[in-house]
Amino acid sequence: MKRYYCGIDIGGTTAKMCLYDAECTELLHVWEVPTIKHTDEYVVLNRIFDSLREVCTLYKMSLRDLYGIGIGVPGPVTEDGVVLKCVNLGWDIINLKKIVTEKTGVNNVEIGNDANVAALGEMWRGSAKKYKSIVMVTLGTGVGGGMIVDGKIHPGRNGAAGEIGHMTIEPDEKEMCSCGCKGCLEQFASATGIVRLAKKMYPNEYGKGKVDAKYLFDHAKKGDEKACDVVEMLYKYLGIALSNMAKVMSPEAFLIGGGVAGAGSILCEGVNKYYREYSLHALKDTPIKLAGLGNMAGMYGAVRMVLNEEDI
Amino acid sequence: MKRYYCGIDIGGTTAKMCLYDAECTELLHVWEVPTIKHTDEYVVLNRIFDSLREVCTLYKMSLRDLYGIGIGVPGPVTEDGVVLKCVNLGWDIINLKKIVTEKTGVNNVEIGNDANVAALGEMWRGSAKKYKSIVMVTLGTGVGGGMIVDGKIHPGRNGAAGEIGHMTIEPDEKEMCSCGCKGCLEQFASATGIVRLAKKMYPNEYGKGKVDAKYLFDHAKKGDEKACDVVEMLYKYLGIALSNMAKVMSPEAFLIGGGVAGAGSILCEGVNKYYREYSLHALKDTPIKLAGLGNMAGMYGAVRMVLNEEDI
Repeated sequence: MKRYYCGIDIGGTTAKMCLYDAECTELLHVWEVPTIKHTDEYVVLNRIFDSLREVCTLYKMSLRDLYGIGIGVPGPVTEDGVVLKCVNLGWDIINLKKIVTEKTGVNNVEIGNDANVAALGEMWRGSAKKYKSIVMVTLGTGVGGGMIVDGKIHPGRNGAAGEIGHMTIEPDEKEMCSCGCKGCLEQFASATGIVRLAKKMYPNEYGKGKVDAKYLFDHAKKGDEKACDVVEMLYKYLGIALSNMAKVMSPEAFLIGGGVAGAGSILCEGVNKYYREYSLHALKDTPIKLAGLGNMAGMYGAVRMVLNEEDI
Repeated sequence: MKRYYCGIDIGGTTAKMCLYDAECTELLHVWEVPTIKHTDEYVVLNRIFDSLREVCTLYKMSLRDLYGIGIGVPGPVTEDGVVLKCVNLGWDIINLKKIVTEKTGVNNVEIGNDANVAALGEMWRGSAKKYKSIVMVTLGTGVGGGMIVDGKIHPGRNGAAGEIGHMTIEPDEKEMCSCGCKGCLEQFASATGIVRLAKKMYPNEYGKGKVDAKYLFDHAKKGDEKACDVVEMLYKYLGIALSNMAKVMSPEAFLIGGGVAGAGSILCEGVNKYYREYSLHALKDTPIKLAGLGNMAGMYGAVRMVLNEEDI
């Protein structure tokens, strides 16, 4: 029988799912299942596994014939597969690894935080193929961080490594971040953060109208001075934050992904300028690259977590 | 024959050395050799190995009978034992691991950065015995960082992980740090940094007289308001810095060592207050402890790097 693995990237609106064929080394079947916020995690999980069972049938096998199931979830995950609350899904603390094994009969199950899993995907099939230790920064509605050390996900105590969106970069900030603290990176460098920054820096221009990150980057590219100022500020905050991460971990490379990374290579160049300015000599040349897999990274990473040695 | 290991902690003035007896699990012989700043690293190394040879003779063996030699050096070290400049010793880039093996005939040789090696020592025999992932912060003339991930030293790219003394915590600072950047942690939270802070905050009181870190902590303990203000500021900077490190790595514990840690448990408590204030829920309870081995930590860590499985 062919060796199939399943990768699942659970998000707040959908779970992206794939079957991976280890012989052809390709994603054989890619599909999505809607998720909903529900305090009973089984509502979402049953939907996911019912759908997976149907797809398995198409390939003339049952769930338990899968060689492994890897899952990325939007919350902190401990090294033994316990999910410590997923706010976006309404889940409390659950031993997801155990639940998945019980529901599917598959023993080779791994659970990871979605940002970490995406970073692993980029290392396997994306922009970070050359590296074994990386930090992946995802600039979306918030700022997420994926941490890979020596080729493996580094979850850290309480699964809280990579919570870089909440690095304090402006201790005297007055507004509160969603986490309850003040002055977090994501209050400045996320899709919502840059808009907040724009409204603060130029209330007359950006105070009332509908601006978003794309608008600001597009206008900065056209040379609009005020948009340039705002974007430059994001570069500075992010450059300093990356430099501080490097002084802790010194990864082989940084990857930048997420919606804001749609701005393209000027984002990496802008951030890199400040990164170098605030970095020690030994750190100045760490590459800062765009992520390559977009929203497929999570599925690739989920598969990679459970691949057997022979299939890597 | 007994199983002896050698641990060496090379500093700017002396190399602290020890022979470790794996059977009695103790430091059998502890001694020091003066070091000097010299562009020819062999001047220092020959002195060290001549002295080691003499001590070996006391135990009726030759250098090559040693089961392993571990060395901590005050500079960045790559994973394969290449030392990338030791400014304090005047060394350029050298493959120290190779040199030591050639000069001694011992094959089991490991080289590490001194801060990392001290952290390993604390994990083996000091305050961090329970843990496998820690960040050790050394508050001396500068601020050093030792990084242990999954029980092993994490040197990072270019051996630059743990350069936490140069985390940017005050981007608008005007004075320059020794590293060439501005606003580094060690400009505020080291033995020299706290004095600079005192002179800046209270130029009339501390501007001219001879104050040092001990003076400030002693007076703060007695309730002197201005000294309290200064010390409080150090707590805040260090608390935010530790919180930011946790958001990157999420270690199981932080250890604080070095001369400034002589202030005792009030230091940990003061730092912890701000650490909690700026940390996410999942990170708030990370223990912040004093290091336990003082300047012996480096020798213990150096031995630990080369211990064979059977002797751990």
